[in-house]
Amino acid sequence: MQAIILGDGAMGTAIAAALRARGEAVLGVHGRPKPGQTHSPADLRNDLGSTGAWGEIAGPRPAVRTGCNGGETLAFDFSAGDAVAANVDAALAAGCRRFVIGTTAWEDQRDAVDRALLESGAAGVASASFSLGVALFARLVEEAGRLFSPFTEYDPFIVEWHRRTKPDRPSGTAKELSRRLIAAHGRKRRTTGPGQTAPPDHDELEVVAVRAGASPGMHLVGFDAPGETVELRLTARDRSAYVAGALASADWLLMTPRPAGLHPFESVVSDLISATASN
Amino acid sequence: MQAIILGDGAMGTAIAAALRARGEAVLGVHGRPKPGQTHSPADLRNDLGSTGAWGEIAGPRPAVRTGCNGGETLAFDFSAGDAVAANVDAALAAGCRRFVIGTTAWEDQRDAVDRALLESGAAGVASASFSLGVALFARLVEEAGRLFSPFTEYDPFIVEWHRRTKPDRPSGTAKELSRRLIAAHGRKRRTTGPGQTAPPDHDELEVVAVRAGASPGMHLVGFDAPGETVELRLTARDRSAYVAGALASADWLLMTPRPAGLHPFESVVSDLISATASN
Amino acid sequence: MQAIILGDGAMGTAIAAALRARGEAVLGVHGRPKPGQTHSPADLRNDLGSTGAWGEIAGPRPAVRTGCNGGETLAFDFSAGDAVAANVDAALAAGCRRFVIGTTAWEDQRDAVDRALLESGAAGVASASFSLGVALFARLVEEAGRLFSPFTEYDPFIVEWHRRTKPDRPSGTAKELSRRLIAAHGRKRRTTGPGQTAPPDHDELEVVAVRAGASPGMHLVGFDAPGETVELRLTARDRSAYVAGALASADWLLMTPRPAGLHPFESVVSDLISATASN
Amino acid sequence: MQAIILGDGAMGTAIAAALRARGEAVLGVHGRPKPGQTHSPADLRNDLGSTGAWGEIAGPRPAVRTGCNGGETLAFDFSAGDAVAANVDAALAAGCRRFVIGTTAWEDQRDAVDRALLESGAAGVASASFSLGVALFARLVEEAGRLFSPFTEYDPFIVEWHRRTKPDRPSGTAKELSRRLIAAHGRKRRTTGPGQTAPPDHDELEVVAVRAGASPGMHLVGFDAPGETVELRLTARDRSAYVAGALASADWLLMTPRPAGLHPFESVVSDLISATASN
Repeated sequence: MQAIILGDGAMGTAIAAALRARGEAVLGVHGRPKPGQTHSPADLRNDLGSTGAWGEIAGPRPAVRTGCNGGETLAFDFSAGDAVAANVDAALAAGCRRFVIGTTAWEDQRDAVDRALLESGAAGVASASFSLGVALFARLVEEAGRLFSPFTEYDPFIVEWHRRTKPDRPSGTAKELSRRLIAAHGRKRRTTGPGQTAPPDHDELEVVAVRAGASPGMHLVGFDAPGETVELRLTARDRSAYVAGALASADWLLMTPRPAGLHPFESVVSDLISATASN
Repeated sequence: MQAIILGDGAMGTAIAAALRARGEAVLGVHGRPKPGQTHSPADLRNDLGSTGAWGEIAGPRPAVRTGCNGGETLAFDFSAGDAVAANVDAALAAGCRRFVIGTTAWEDQRDAVDRALLESGAAGVASASFSLGVALFARLVEEAGRLFSPFTEYDPFIVEWHRRTKPDRPSGTAKELSRRLIAAHGRKRRTTGPGQTAPPDHDELEVVAVRAGASPGMHLVGFDAPGETVELRLTARDRSAYVAGALASADWLLMTPRPAGLHPFESVVSDLISATASN
Repeated sequence: MQAIILGDGAMGTAIAAALRARGEAVLGVHGRPKPGQTHSPADLRNDLGSTGAWGEIAGPRPAVRTGCNGGETLAFDFSAGDAVAANVDAALAAGCRRFVIGTTAWEDQRDAVDRALLESGAAGVASASFSLGVALFARLVEEAGRLFSPFTEYDPFIVEWHRRTKPDRPSGTAKELSRRLIAAHGRKRRTTGPGQTAPPDHDELEVVAVRAGASPGMHLVGFDAPGETVELRLTARDRSAYVAGALASADWLLMTPRPAGLHPFESVVSDLISATASN
Repeated sequence: MQAIILGDGAMGTAIAAALRARGEAVLGVHGRPKPGQTHSPADLRNDLGSTGAWGEIAGPRPAVRTGCNGGETLAFDFSAGDAVAANVDAALAAGCRRFVIGTTAWEDQRDAVDRALLESGAAGVASASFSLGVALFARLVEEAGRLFSPFTEYDPFIVEWHRRTKPDRPSGTAKELSRRLIAAHGRKRRTTGPGQTAPPDHDELEVVAVRAGASPGMHLVGFDAPGETVELRLTARDRSAYVAGALASADWLLMTPRPAGLHPFESVVSDLISATASN
């Protein structure tokens, strides 16, 4: 695998280090562009050119270039929300056809990015979180929601902890867990929020955020009954789980040609589960 | 429902109180017989007779007496292991045809009890634990075992807490959770035990017991990976969950005629889940 | 000890049961008076009279009647906030001179009640919580606040869990813990509240409430640092700790004559600690 | 500060990285010597010589060479137990006079090392753990032991979690916490161990070890009572707390001349607490 890293924040840097530790070639790590700017195709082409594998891309964009070196090059985008679309365009123009996108807050550009990938026959995995733990935990929460749904004495709730300076409450992961729990459980219709001071109604899912210190993230889903409590807890110690999931997504893209367009991390996880289950 | 309670320990007393709170008739609460003794049919018949519903049982034992008051009378056995078989015989002779048995340590009498019920056309639910929470938690643990099984970086373990004076390590519930987790997970072959001082092998499931204070029971099943930990925790606050499950089993026996013989609490739980799910 | 219980809610009922289990005489348990009404001295005198120990109280109120049966009679008030002052007046008029008051939300009547006790030479222990665990936990939290105060990398926070229907956020105990932690720690000036959506400032103590199910109360005080987390957690399983503290306060009042007026539960706890420490 | 790192395991490497991040000069990181071998003074002198600050050390060893560059050079020993004494000798011979020793299992060499430091007028901080969190947590546990000691209903216990492959049960930190808790609490005389299957006696402190996955270390000290549980928990996310404490010890040695010989990490912590408290 050859990799271009777009975004040199904590995640971009960690992915580059993990790739190098695996013996992969990191062609370049590009800092987050300044607000209003993006990476240019020339910058990226320069990285790719340094391996002698890429020339000018001209004419209609080719299908996934399996068999050529280009098919082995991945762009990891962990930059800033408003830079994703332009980054992808630049990387496509430079010849990249495989993408792992972990940037958040670019929902409004998602359709455009998906279209650009489809037009170029390129495939990408995009997720707000590449934590395998989060993906498995979310499935477990859904199962718990189904299991406890018939028993009204078990009242579900969600609590999440993150570092003091995290700007949003609740976390994106807590929102996703809430959404799935409400769907699986069926007896809660909406969530309480950080601004709520009243007790939750019986059909409100209590969702609470704690902000303190440096916690890299804990999520707790509980079901409280008169005589007992069931708790499901996911505690991250560091970013390594997120890096591992990003690399697993890269491997998934390289393993076999994938349909063009954006894929959710869930597809990677499902394949990992069934691949191993059939061994 | 009319109830005879065999065993006046903490559970027998709590069941009697819960039945009365529901407006049910508790015909009698019989103390645990002294070692080597059992309850006599005459004692129990006296309880039943006090409602005017029961006469002498003679000749071949009848099938479940639905339609008569007898069909509505349940015997709850929460006595001592070596008294179960004789208690059931006495209650059968007195005309009882529905049983909820929560006594532990009578595995060696189980076949005899099952046979006696079959011969009388009587049905019972027997379980070492009537906690709905434990039953649901065990299913969740199985699901977690299946989910995390493909991912070798998640190493499972079990910890349980109980009061300082609890004689056995680990708890019966922890043993059952271990058995189910090993079956669902597939990569652990055996458990470590309280006597083990060496680190667990990669195919040993670490099972640890904590004995302190007055805890009515906590069970923790974890999956620990390099960058994150997933924990499933069931904490009992008191015996109310056990009482609720015993009463739910009684309701299940009275809801519709059940096949003669002993049924596991799992059957009650499965029906509760699917009954509500289909509403 | 002889006891009159004012208030027949969960706490009043539990205290009556615990007193009876200890072999004490419970002269009467009086329901919470209807809004706008109070218990009459005649009602209470009737209870006291039933033991033959009390006659009409006339003339100026006597000092604590040690040596007479009256000195042994305690009034436990666990009624409603707006009934406390009138209840105390009625019990004083009926001859009671020892009080344990666990009702909440009567701060505006506190001076009047204190004055009434002083005028009658009567003594009482009043607290929003009689949990020995809470009292000891609060001292431990203060010590932790002092210990971690010099180390800016440890950021404190408070989370509390209670039943879904509890009307106030955060709990009174969490407020008291916040107050003490801020005083001992010195680097936080104020708390965040349930209505806050922004991240806490560096000098704001994050205080978060969770409302779900039937939890009788958990309080968590944490100190989160880049590489580690310290957590202090108090989990109540039921009301027994509150009952035990109320009875310990009664014993404290009967042990030796106490100065007239209201005493905090803290004084009882301090004496318990030093009494045992000197054994 | 200039540093020589003896031992290139996880801790040695992490300390070197943290020093470089602070802008300090790391003169050399020496791999753990092969069993039976040690670092030679010549190796270390070579490191020191590379900064032009050190010549041959001859004649009687000088007192702490404050004012010369040597006084600013620290040796961090995080090597193997049987190498500590020889490492210290080599470093002393090369001119080092300040030591931070975090290696474990060299108790039998401690007197010899202490003597060697005294003879050279050199000072060192030695500890099995340089975690500031562990040091503060241990003080909190002592305070909790004193607080709960008078109340027999609160039964203490200790649980610790570490990675599956950790060879010893319980951890050194758990042993130290046990020792201090028993001393402060006064009603427990000895600990239960990993080989124990019987319930603990009333004067035995239950100490339990859990081995699973990759946990860098959790320690839980609890006090369990009939109606409530108090838990003190220290969770390490990574080694950063240990590195921070090693660096704080280095700063403490450089801040002002310290008496020759070995100092415990506790002395560093006490000074940190009182220094900040007096600001």
